[in-house]
Amino acid sequence: MGRDYDFFLVMNACMVLFMQSGFALLEAGSVRAKNVTNILIKNLLDVVVGAIVYWACGFAFAYGKVKRSEHDYVASNIRIIHGGSFYGEFFFNFVFAATATTIISGAVAERVEFLSYLVYGVVATGFIQPVAVHWGWSNGWLLYPPEIIRLPPAVWYRDYAGGGNVHAVGGIAALVGCVFMGPREGRFEDGRKYHIPGHSTPLTCMGAFILIIGFLAMVLGHGDNVALGVTNLTIGGSMSGITCMCIVFIAPKLEYLWKYKIKKIPRSRKIKPKQYWSFLVLVDATLAGMVAMCAGCNVLEPFGAAIIGIVAGFGFAVTEHWLHIRQIDDPVGSIPVHLTGGVIGVLMAPLFANKEEEYSFIHWKGCDFDCVGDVNSTCVYNLGFQQLLWQMIGIVAILMWTLVLSSFIFWICWYCDILRVDMDTEVRGIDIAKHGEPAYPNAAYGHGWDTEGGS
Amino acid sequence: MGRDYDFFLVMNACMVLFMQSGFALLEAGSVRAKNVTNILIKNLLDVVVGAIVYWACGFAFAYGKVKRSEHDYVASNIRIIHGGSFYGEFFFNFVFAATATTIISGAVAERVEFLSYLVYGVVATGFIQPVAVHWGWSNGWLLYPPEIIRLPPAVWYRDYAGGGNVHAVGGIAALVGCVFMGPREGRFEDGRKYHIPGHSTPLTCMGAFILIIGFLAMVLGHGDNVALGVTNLTIGGSMSGITCMCIVFIAPKLEYLWKYKIKKIPRSRKIKPKQYWSFLVLVDATLAGMVAMCAGCNVLEPFGAAIIGIVAGFGFAVTEHWLHIRQIDDPVGSIPVHLTGGVIGVLMAPLFANKEEEYSFIHWKGCDFDCVGDVNSTCVYNLGFQQLLWQMIGIVAILMWTLVLSSFIFWICWYCDILRVDMDTEVRGIDIAKHGEPAYPNAAYGHGWDTEGGS
Amino acid sequence: MGRDYDFFLVMNACMVLFMQSGFALLEAGSVRAKNVTNILIKNLLDVVVGAIVYWACGFAFAYGKVKRSEHDYVASNIRIIHGGSFYGEFFFNFVFAATATTIISGAVAERVEFLSYLVYGVVATGFIQPVAVHWGWSNGWLLYPPEIIRLPPAVWYRDYAGGGNVHAVGGIAALVGCVFMGPREGRFEDGRKYHIPGHSTPLTCMGAFILIIGFLAMVLGHGDNVALGVTNLTIGGSMSGITCMCIVFIAPKLEYLWKYKIKKIPRSRKIKPKQYWSFLVLVDATLAGMVAMCAGCNVLEPFGAAIIGIVAGFGFAVTEHWLHIRQIDDPVGSIPVHLTGGVIGVLMAPLFANKEEEYSFIHWKGCDFDCVGDVNSTCVYNLGFQQLLWQMIGIVAILMWTLVLSSFIFWICWYCDILRVDMDTEVRGIDIAKHGEPAYPNAAYGHGWDTEGGS
Repeated sequence: MGRDYDFFLVMNACMVLFMQSGFALLEAGSVRAKNVTNILIKNLLDVVVGAIVYWACGFAFAYGKVKRSEHDYVASNIRIIHGGSFYGEFFFNFVFAATATTIISGAVAERVEFLSYLVYGVVATGFIQPVAVHWGWSNGWLLYPPEIIRLPPAVWYRDYAGGGNVHAVGGIAALVGCVFMGPREGRFEDGRKYHIPGHSTPLTCMGAFILIIGFLAMVLGHGDNVALGVTNLTIGGSMSGITCMCIVFIAPKLEYLWKYKIKKIPRSRKIKPKQYWSFLVLVDATLAGMVAMCAGCNVLEPFGAAIIGIVAGFGFAVTEHWLHIRQIDDPVGSIPVHLTGGVIGVLMAPLFANKEEEYSFIHWKGCDFDCVGDVNSTCVYNLGFQQLLWQMIGIVAILMWTLVLSSFIFWICWYCDILRVDMDTEVRGIDIAKHGEPAYPNAAYGHGWDTEGGS
Repeated sequence: MGRDYDFFLVMNACMVLFMQSGFALLEAGSVRAKNVTNILIKNLLDVVVGAIVYWACGFAFAYGKVKRSEHDYVASNIRIIHGGSFYGEFFFNFVFAATATTIISGAVAERVEFLSYLVYGVVATGFIQPVAVHWGWSNGWLLYPPEIIRLPPAVWYRDYAGGGNVHAVGGIAALVGCVFMGPREGRFEDGRKYHIPGHSTPLTCMGAFILIIGFLAMVLGHGDNVALGVTNLTIGGSMSGITCMCIVFIAPKLEYLWKYKIKKIPRSRKIKPKQYWSFLVLVDATLAGMVAMCAGCNVLEPFGAAIIGIVAGFGFAVTEHWLHIRQIDDPVGSIPVHLTGGVIGVLMAPLFANKEEEYSFIHWKGCDFDCVGDVNSTCVYNLGFQQLLWQMIGIVAILMWTLVLSSFIFWICWYCDILRVDMDTEVRGIDIAKHGEPAYPNAAYGHGWDTEGGS
Repeated sequence: MGRDYDFFLVMNACMVLFMQSGFALLEAGSVRAKNVTNILIKNLLDVVVGAIVYWACGFAFAYGKVKRSEHDYVASNIRIIHGGSFYGEFFFNFVFAATATTIISGAVAERVEFLSYLVYGVVATGFIQPVAVHWGWSNGWLLYPPEIIRLPPAVWYRDYAGGGNVHAVGGIAALVGCVFMGPREGRFEDGRKYHIPGHSTPLTCMGAFILIIGFLAMVLGHGDNVALGVTNLTIGGSMSGITCMCIVFIAPKLEYLWKYKIKKIPRSRKIKPKQYWSFLVLVDATLAGMVAMCAGCNVLEPFGAAIIGIVAGFGFAVTEHWLHIRQIDDPVGSIPVHLTGGVIGVLMAPLFANKEEEYSFIHWKGCDFDCVGDVNSTCVYNLGFQQLLWQMIGIVAILMWTLVLSSFIFWICWYCDILRVDMDTEVRGIDIAKHGEPAYPNAAYGHGWDTEGGS
């Protein structure tokens, strides 16, 4: 067991760690060229600083030994990882914590001050996410519900690959960050939204593909029903991507029909609706679908994965729209991908869990086995609802926890006036001002030949 | 077995799936900047749509249960994958089907209409490639030759990692696509060939490296003699790449010598032949060599791999030349890499299989064991030829099958006039017209600083 | 064992091979756009040529069977790999040899002649590095110290993942190459250093992330204490990166204080020191820290890894400074990363090895067990020093071996005048002159639309 298990764990952890480069490239491709180095250093730095912090205290908060009977909410014995044989677990959990932290870097891109991002990263990797992990994965109250509420033993908070305590944690913090930070200069003016394009779709694409592989590794690493897991992940992600791409393609046409055909708004000249197959929507919505699979991919029926994927696709489109209305500026779509996807996944997982699982809603039809738990002696019907309810309580608890703590940190940064770079730096670009390293220095381009080779 | 085997399979399948990003980047680097988003969305979309289609029917066509005695050619029971424990197999085979489909996207790049590519992708992933897999890998007539032709039991169609039913299927479809599509505007004019350079060699290089790793994973995933397999793959690919790079380097010199030294064509002024070490040739020919290894890498002797590699290198150069003469425009070299490489591999694998394999040609020398099969009671000499013949029949059958079906699909698309984008869009670029997302938007570049940092 | 072990080995070897693309991208991003294709082809070519050479003789030099009692220094039976069951070992060791060779390509970038790099690559992959491997990993004198010097049996040269015979070998050769080659035109003029920026930080970042994953795979592949290994690698790399980034951030301030506050140098006008958070320093120093972990990551205590990381961070900064003073031009930082990192790692590994290891310095406190070896009957105290001394002898021997041989090769290339491209080609760019393939051809950019899509 030992050695092979470690190999297992570490191998997959490496692939999950590789997601960091996926985030870095996806985000770099989605910002303007003048802020690329800034986003790259942020992404690399939250890994290296995160590794130290998670080693120093994060892992202890997450998996520190506490007597199980006490159900305390935060691990009591905090200490530097030292000795013992849990380095595999440490490394595996570190990469998830680092992922949760990285999520927000995209949302606050092109305007966040280097230092305040670092402060947030330290607290998030070292405390906020580990506590959520403690609750949901280690031995916290979500996994061992307090006896006083008398849940049947088969009901506990189920989140297989971190839909809640990785993605939703990152997503809600991203939302808080965006709200505190305010939109980028020029994004919303006079109540109108202006498009600020990213500087390179190939970088975004490369990043997205790495993230897709990373999601698969996330599922693999948890080691339960891996084949079903990756199948669900693929189907769910695909459905979400296709759904949302089609929504975005059809939307202008529908708006056009509504405005000029049904409401018959008068217009000076005929304009045809512009319909595009959007690559960036396909990418982001596919990722949102994969996030939505994380919570339950080891138990979902594939058709259930497809349905959740479609819901995630709609959820993505709705969230994006809501952000535009609220004038919240999320340059890379962190919030619709990770927050919406994560929450949808955690809530919908019990609905389509395959019928071997006691709490599955698919059970309803048959109800052909003895009910568990003395609370609901009538039927397993209740078990599904109780599971759903507990999932709901779990995700709300995790969201509130992250919301409160990250608001506090961002508020402090705002109070100390280190939250956002000054206007001049933002408009001219952060790379040169803060890092002295433009992503594409003019001096490095050009050549001295008249013709460009070839036949 | 179960769990570890699944882990095995899925892990490697993930790495093969990562090849999709390799194809995406290699192709993106090989087209002009105005069509980059278009090729990226095509590559991502054929994965996500392919996943749904392969789930819906592709896997059933490939591995649907049929009674073995009946030897029917297409699986009879088509149904959505649901229940059972074959998710690992499903996922593993899906990534190969997706690879076969993706191959053609490069060949028809910069001119294909989005919709017609999608139609082709659906049919290819859902039907064409699965049937070829059924024949060669699952339980079709190539694997269980009809009894009537009385082949010895040791002879059946051998294609270890998909040289035929993945690469050759993709390659021949790419050829059909290119012929139907016609060359890009400005590629061939007045009988002359004009070079249309790709926009970024680093993207191409990144893509190629990912493909190389993916090829290794393809071999690993099939799980037989993995160490020998990767060794052969590396040696064969290397030999092919070096051979072809040297051919391209020497060719202008030879042409020069032929023209002015031997034929003594008069010339107005002295021109030295321009000799280049071509990076793109090295990349593509290395990939062609690896494709040529797919069919037999688990049984080949390394020296045989080297010889096949050299042949593949020559084959690549000859195919490229033939395409130029026939004015067939394949922007990324899909045809010489996958079609030529795949066919050479399938045909040459028996010649250099190590002598433990009964059908190996290396056997001839010794002939020191009892012959198998009652047909050829003289010597195993025949066995090698019969194997070679059956490989030939197999690859021809697969090529014809794909040729006919893909011709039919492209013909329909041509008939419906959705095959190719209109001339205006092609000349100006597809990204902005169809996707509204240029790969490198001008608005995302530039900064507001006078000097560019640094010391 | 057999099959699983091979799978193990090959899987990780694939990930280490992927490092080649990491080197290619990191180096491509660090050079000017006019030399990108040149560096890419060099990196791909040293793999494909290296594969052939390592197959032809490299592996035989490294692991050729010699009778252990004879302790000869170079394997005697050189032969083409053929038959047998050591393909896994072959492939695994090949990727390390290829890594050692690739290291120098960055150091001599933008000026080396294609041919001379190839000559060096062939000798390095086929002979220089294999001999170092033979000494340290296979059955050479470092692993089995000559009996005459009467070292206790627990003392031998320990280099777990190639800090010495991969990284230091590559690093010292890079230094020799840089010295022979001389700096790039315009790098040092009138005793001053001029910054020549690389053309793309995203490429550099992508490359660095791939290298990080590759380092983890290097550790995994050796299969001993993998979980502890990756933990140490992560912590050591992080500490080094953070340390060096802070040094570079603080240095201008310190220099300023020294000059104007302490020494009170008069100045015409007030200039504030410019302080930057350097992304490229973070990247390179993190890699240096990881290199420093290679030698001992399977036995180090994590706190020891942190300390070695900090030392590596300082070492990186000092080496960089020394190179500037000596006017040695290393465009991508190969020397400080691989030479400094490798040497620090080999020397410091015994100091912080965990106390289960007999030779560990941490032992000193307790000294609570029977001493091994009849030489030092007093205390295990001596064992640690003897180990340290033997590490020192080992690394010096490896460095001298590589130094002498690579000097000889570069000297021959210099003598034949094929060492460096001519001045005209260097100034105008190598891509077009030698390869006919500019990395970013002007003809491939631009589009024909007035507006750039979007809303």
